[in-house]
Amino acid sequence: MLAAALADESAQRTCTFEIFARRLPNGRRYGVVAGTERFVEAVSRFRFGESELAVVGKFLDDRTVEWLRNYRFSGDVDGYPEGELYFPNSPILSVRGTFAECVLLETLALSIFNHDSAIASAAARMVSAAAGRVLIDMGSRRTHEIAAPASSRAAYLAGFTSTSNLEAVRRFGIPGTGTSAHAFVLLHSATDGYHEATAFRSQVAAQGVGTTLLVDTFDIAQGVKTAIEVAGPELGGVRIDSGDLGVLTRQTRDQLDALGATKTKIVLSGDLDEYAIASLRADPVDVYGVGTRLVTGSGAPTAGMVYKLVEVDGIPVSKRSSHKGSRGGAKRAVRLARSTGTIVEEIIFPANAAVPESDEFTVSELAIPLIRSGDPVDSLPTLQDGRQRVAAGLLSLPWEGLKLSEGEPAIPTTFAE
Amino acid sequence: MLAAALADESAQRTCTFEIFARRLPNGRRYGVVAGTERFVEAVSRFRFGESELAVVGKFLDDRTVEWLRNYRFSGDVDGYPEGELYFPNSPILSVRGTFAECVLLETLALSIFNHDSAIASAAARMVSAAAGRVLIDMGSRRTHEIAAPASSRAAYLAGFTSTSNLEAVRRFGIPGTGTSAHAFVLLHSATDGYHEATAFRSQVAAQGVGTTLLVDTFDIAQGVKTAIEVAGPELGGVRIDSGDLGVLTRQTRDQLDALGATKTKIVLSGDLDEYAIASLRADPVDVYGVGTRLVTGSGAPTAGMVYKLVEVDGIPVSKRSSHKGSRGGAKRAVRLARSTGTIVEEIIFPANAAVPESDEFTVSELAIPLIRSGDPVDSLPTLQDGRQRVAAGLLSLPWEGLKLSEGEPAIPTTFAE
Repeated sequence: MLAAALADESAQRTCTFEIFARRLPNGRRYGVVAGTERFVEAVSRFRFGESELAVVGKFLDDRTVEWLRNYRFSGDVDGYPEGELYFPNSPILSVRGTFAECVLLETLALSIFNHDSAIASAAARMVSAAAGRVLIDMGSRRTHEIAAPASSRAAYLAGFTSTSNLEAVRRFGIPGTGTSAHAFVLLHSATDGYHEATAFRSQVAAQGVGTTLLVDTFDIAQGVKTAIEVAGPELGGVRIDSGDLGVLTRQTRDQLDALGATKTKIVLSGDLDEYAIASLRADPVDVYGVGTRLVTGSGAPTAGMVYKLVEVDGIPVSKRSSHKGSRGGAKRAVRLARSTGTIVEEIIFPANAAVPESDEFTVSELAIPLIRSGDPVDSLPTLQDGRQRVAAGLLSLPWEGLKLSEGEPAIPTTFAE
Repeated sequence: MLAAALADESAQRTCTFEIFARRLPNGRRYGVVAGTERFVEAVSRFRFGESELAVVGKFLDDRTVEWLRNYRFSGDVDGYPEGELYFPNSPILSVRGTFAECVLLETLALSIFNHDSAIASAAARMVSAAAGRVLIDMGSRRTHEIAAPASSRAAYLAGFTSTSNLEAVRRFGIPGTGTSAHAFVLLHSATDGYHEATAFRSQVAAQGVGTTLLVDTFDIAQGVKTAIEVAGPELGGVRIDSGDLGVLTRQTRDQLDALGATKTKIVLSGDLDEYAIASLRADPVDVYGVGTRLVTGSGAPTAGMVYKLVEVDGIPVSKRSSHKGSRGGAKRAVRLARSTGTIVEEIIFPANAAVPESDEFTVSELAIPLIRSGDPVDSLPTLQDGRQRVAAGLLSLPWEGLKLSEGEPAIPTTFAE
């Protein structure tokens, strides 16, 4: 495409590409925009080095290779701030520049937004289901090794408390938390059998009584008894990773209380998702550790967003084949809310039209500038800003919007002509 | 765990950790081991730099930080060769060394094997369903930007023909292929409307008549007509990305043949998975382009493998809580096959026992050495070797094993005591 566009000179036409999702996966009520900060940072680093040029030089003409050698995105990008909710057709990102410079960003942009938004959207449902209790990301081992810190970041954006991924701690400043594994208990074995108490004593010696002991390697009731014997009633927490978590949680709480460990927290893990988290809401759980279902988007491992050319030299364009047609023309969007803050509708309108007005509702424009002439704008929202935005977004949803069951998007998105 | 084990000196105990999957996802009949080469390479690079040490130094004692500063895995690793089939409980990887050096590799090992094996396992089913036709990986935009090349690699291992991911071409030497997008056709628009013929002419001028033209931006029949008018009957291919692919493929084949373009190939894309591929088997499809369902493991985005401590100083250990119990002791495995090559059973046996024998079946041990004293062994199997191994593995499956429907594993895995 690039070579042909450079040859026929259409490469220099001024274009707008937009990212949006045609629908929300699995009957979800809302999505969470994530990846914005990572995308802005990635665009500023997106270059072709000699090693890359050698590969594309095998099938591209010299002019195209030379153009890639000098590539640097010099256009403008606007988008929803990271952590904003989105709905079908929300114009989440708008990329403007020449065709050549914009078309090259498609895979980069979609990879980041589809990945991060899939995790954040699933994580927000878990946060909502946890109703204020602590959520730890423990999913690194269930996703690609370099995708893992990005997953941790998306989960934290959506309201998770902390992560077990130390690289995410290092790179993004997310709070880190860990617990020990069964391997540590099993390590303390001898020819006469296992020595759970020795393992617990060793962990408490190294980490203090505030640590969390994994009590389900053998027998949970015995594990809890041993844990309190070793650490005393000031033990920080016990983790249970198997079995019927509701029943075991209630039994363990009773046992801990009877042993005087009334402040010892119960940490649950083991294939938790938003439904399991919600089903445990009536039980005395203090902390949820979530792994597989978090990093795989709980049934929706990619957000399904697309990157579409919508305008060329001011002319609206759109594919007209079959049901996949999308609306041409650069777009902006506003969200309407009641005075209580509850959102009621999103209106998408032509970018060159006036912002819709309303007597009844407050009208807020969604997109903000992200990149100008190839450079990130000053004072981009931070990860903490995004985290607050998700929290505020969840509060702004109509009551129906927080339902975990399948249904319609929480608010309609309409096109104003 | 590491700090406590260093303090109580259990860190130096000789351990064996094993990777295995308790079950295959979604009633699949087999899995494909992938990630071995990437894992071996990652282990040799796995170090803690000053930036990483600064992070862990906030919660670890000086001795542990110093130990991490000098960390280098010095143990041994054996495993199934990449591309080998696996079944529930197959001991895919065996890591031996001190507790401290082995426990640190858990997340790295699982991330790589769970990701790559999930993709390869889904891809192999697509390869099998495609029955010899060309499969192109087009999934990069639906997964994390750095996971994407690893996905392409896993797909190629499993039998995909090529990838649209140029970084995978660069890094792994996989054949690259691309087609143009709707954006390229839409780019060729003016105030008087779209100019599909201009776009096609430009692409043919740049890439030659062997190129593949995307014909479904507006009307497919018109697009095909225009494509042959522009490129002539020697046109390499046409791509269809929307609509009822079976009906459209038959119509397009008839139309191409009537235009004399009898050798022009039909490339299909658009949410294809192994079931869609199989359902198109009777239609005149030449090439499948697979995206989302490939990189998300077609419903199983992680292979669900675990990394478990099974032996400490020669003592078999295992967790005994609830249903998650696994068998202690270091293990090896053999696969039994008929003289025709059809496999019938996998036998897992204690690593220090004699290899099981059989009069009736050929017996092949599965694992090979991968790392010795921290260094990769010489002449590790290559990606091409793995690709041949997958192909041979699919041929070795009993007839039932190739069914796409849910069912039992293709062969039983049994434990010999």
